[in-house]
Amino acid sequence: MARPTPLSGFPEWLTDGRVVEQYVLDTLRRTFELHGFAGIETRAVEPLDQLLRKGETSKEVYVLRRLQEDADGEPAVDRSEKQLGLHFDLTVPFARYVLENAGRLAFPFKRYQIQKVWRGERPQDGRFREFVQADIDVVGAGELPYHYEVELPLAMAEALGALRDVGVPEVRILVNNRKVAEGFYRGLGLDDVEGVLRQVDKLDKIGPDAVAELLRAEQGATPEQAKGCLELAAISGEDVAVVERVRALAASYDAVTELLETGLGELAALIEAAARRAPGVVVADLKIARGLDYYTGSVYETVLVGHEQLGSICSGGRYDTLASDGKNTYPGVGLSIGVSRLVSRLLSAGLVTATRGVPTAVLVAVTDEAHRDRSDAVAAALRARGVPADVAPTAAKFGKQIKFADRRGIPFVWFPGQAEEDGTVGPDQVKDIRSGDQVDADAASWAPPAEDLFPRVVPAAAE
Amino acid sequence: MARPTPLSGFPEWLTDGRVVEQYVLDTLRRTFELHGFAGIETRAVEPLDQLLRKGETSKEVYVLRRLQEDADGEPAVDRSEKQLGLHFDLTVPFARYVLENAGRLAFPFKRYQIQKVWRGERPQDGRFREFVQADIDVVGAGELPYHYEVELPLAMAEALGALRDVGVPEVRILVNNRKVAEGFYRGLGLDDVEGVLRQVDKLDKIGPDAVAELLRAEQGATPEQAKGCLELAAISGEDVAVVERVRALAASYDAVTELLETGLGELAALIEAAARRAPGVVVADLKIARGLDYYTGSVYETVLVGHEQLGSICSGGRYDTLASDGKNTYPGVGLSIGVSRLVSRLLSAGLVTATRGVPTAVLVAVTDEAHRDRSDAVAAALRARGVPADVAPTAAKFGKQIKFADRRGIPFVWFPGQAEEDGTVGPDQVKDIRSGDQVDADAASWAPPAEDLFPRVVPAAAE
Repeated sequence: MARPTPLSGFPEWLTDGRVVEQYVLDTLRRTFELHGFAGIETRAVEPLDQLLRKGETSKEVYVLRRLQEDADGEPAVDRSEKQLGLHFDLTVPFARYVLENAGRLAFPFKRYQIQKVWRGERPQDGRFREFVQADIDVVGAGELPYHYEVELPLAMAEALGALRDVGVPEVRILVNNRKVAEGFYRGLGLDDVEGVLRQVDKLDKIGPDAVAELLRAEQGATPEQAKGCLELAAISGEDVAVVERVRALAASYDAVTELLETGLGELAALIEAAARRAPGVVVADLKIARGLDYYTGSVYETVLVGHEQLGSICSGGRYDTLASDGKNTYPGVGLSIGVSRLVSRLLSAGLVTATRGVPTAVLVAVTDEAHRDRSDAVAAALRARGVPADVAPTAAKFGKQIKFADRRGIPFVWFPGQAEEDGTVGPDQVKDIRSGDQVDADAASWAPPAEDLFPRVVPAAAE
Repeated sequence: MARPTPLSGFPEWLTDGRVVEQYVLDTLRRTFELHGFAGIETRAVEPLDQLLRKGETSKEVYVLRRLQEDADGEPAVDRSEKQLGLHFDLTVPFARYVLENAGRLAFPFKRYQIQKVWRGERPQDGRFREFVQADIDVVGAGELPYHYEVELPLAMAEALGALRDVGVPEVRILVNNRKVAEGFYRGLGLDDVEGVLRQVDKLDKIGPDAVAELLRAEQGATPEQAKGCLELAAISGEDVAVVERVRALAASYDAVTELLETGLGELAALIEAAARRAPGVVVADLKIARGLDYYTGSVYETVLVGHEQLGSICSGGRYDTLASDGKNTYPGVGLSIGVSRLVSRLLSAGLVTATRGVPTAVLVAVTDEAHRDRSDAVAAALRARGVPADVAPTAAKFGKQIKFADRRGIPFVWFPGQAEEDGTVGPDQVKDIRSGDQVDADAASWAPPAEDLFPRVVPAAAE
């Protein structure tokens, strides 16, 4: 086998990168659990017809085929079962899970889900084709109180904020409310709300003049209406004054509607609670549209401050119909972090690093192969007390064994006591190979400093 | 969307089952890390030609196709890239990872890997088509000392043993050595070692008489040679006396070879070390053959005591060529746990259970919606001190809020202090809804007993 090369779009890390990724995942999981979200995992596949219900995503699906389908004498498409595809997000599988288990779940049901997803992008497009998402959602049966639209982004802000001290940049959660946009557009006399949102969503890419032109050409807006849409999209701010600015703008266009007022009330509640509970994190940004048409209330996007060109690393919103089985409807609100995109940026921009790529805190040296069992016993004693320990692969010269540790970033090397001429065995010693300090030690009681026990994730500059 | 039904072969758990699975995964990971194994993850896909190098597994592969391959105007098989399939184990991807990153890894390289794998089984066969494996392997560059063949199964025994106190049955690791079998067969005059192993591997299924017949019919063995093979396969035992029995058997057939002696020396070293370091766990069983032809030294299978009919839940062995790029060869030794099979049995046999299915330890009640912020503040104070807390979804009657907690197994309900007639606010109270005890409490200092802080996994009988 010739040396293989990476597959474009399928990121993999060396062990130190994996330490960073695992730390991010563990931190998110811990925060989600502190907030009462229960963990679930769903299978990687869904029936293809379910994956294709949202037409716009159909181009991104990987379809599965059993290699031996034909060899088994079955038709190419196995009639005994629907065609299967890999899930491209965690929302479609969650909606299916809720319906499948509705009778056994307690609602409102809060869950987190951290899994890989796949998108069948063209390899030459350079996009991620496999990546990890971390989602939190709450779903109700029939109804879901508004306050969850405040709670969910704040829980996510806390999860991302818990990564600050290892060097992850500050995050800014940009929020908007579909009812505000829809109420305002309708007040202006624009009834193709989806169409207007779709054009406004292009603002960052093509600029206001081109959007105005599209609104006129494709949505049939008057210059006045297009101007109103752009003025709304230009409003942003951290405090509740934003709501007054929208209200004043709507009044100036005589476009105040009941729906607008409902939306502004919700937006104000979110901004106020966020300003109190997580100052500076949440910003109202009236141009946030979110492409997906199932959002019905709050919508969220999240940028890393200083890395805005990376785009949104965590998005979501409120949907009145996460799932429906015809009889019951399940409204939900949730957000999804693109963990791979985040970790990839942390590593490639050199923001965050791991103190080492192996868990081992202590390498136990081997004096000679006949006494390997002494070294094994030391390692076992350390492990029993929670200290990650490894034993040297061979009884090479101690200098070579120390080099083995050094190459892996293992901070301590342990030397089992040597037999003296009088037949007694000297004390064990442990060496901090960074400082060179070497002291007598007993495997039944010695422990490394807490900061050396496991690899830590730290701001790269601190290394 | 009608209520969906489960897909055969794709197991999913409710939240309490997931708590059990997560506990198993966390425990394995912790033990692996204490032993110095570094965590890696590989992508879910490999080029199909790599997956098919072992002919015997080809029937089990899921091949991927991008749904829009044709629509893009590309040929059905994209010439710019090899066809991709989902990995069916973690050994093939690990071998590829080692070759791809050989220049950046430090050897011997010890890694653990916990991921889903997929096998394209016929749906009607009822086998798992998606399941989690947890692998540990050590791989050397050019050479790998024998002592790792002792260390790896003992590390795995420790990982599985760490699950004993939550109700996982005792495990028994059955070991053999390919050199013993090969040396003995060659000493008997049987040179088609693979063929003989393949027949002996059928012992449990078809019995000794049928195996003897196959050895005669297919491997051209004399009745005497077949008898020798069956006598070897019948030997098993926990101590090193097993080695003497094999040696005596070989002598009685005049079948002692140098290879046999090497294998017996290795087997003795494994048995002795295991008896010292993990008494009662490792048993020599000379009929263990392992179908895969790349094993060259020790081979391992693992049964749950009392659940032997489940088959091996953890298998592996030594392979002199885990990977090779033509220039360098990478020998390895490793074992793989079938986690889904284990967890599925633990749950279905009612051996293990979770104390609750949600992380929440405390539900903070809401007196009325106007004072929800008080409840949010209590929850935030508890979370800041590491106590998982949730806030009631609505300001329903307290009885209903307590029922909300009870239904989820949340042990404590917190009542924010009520405003008194004189305008002061009374103290908060917390109620243990199992005992009914209710006491004054301060969110800045109160904590639940340690055993109630997070859901625990316990033997089912203890519930």
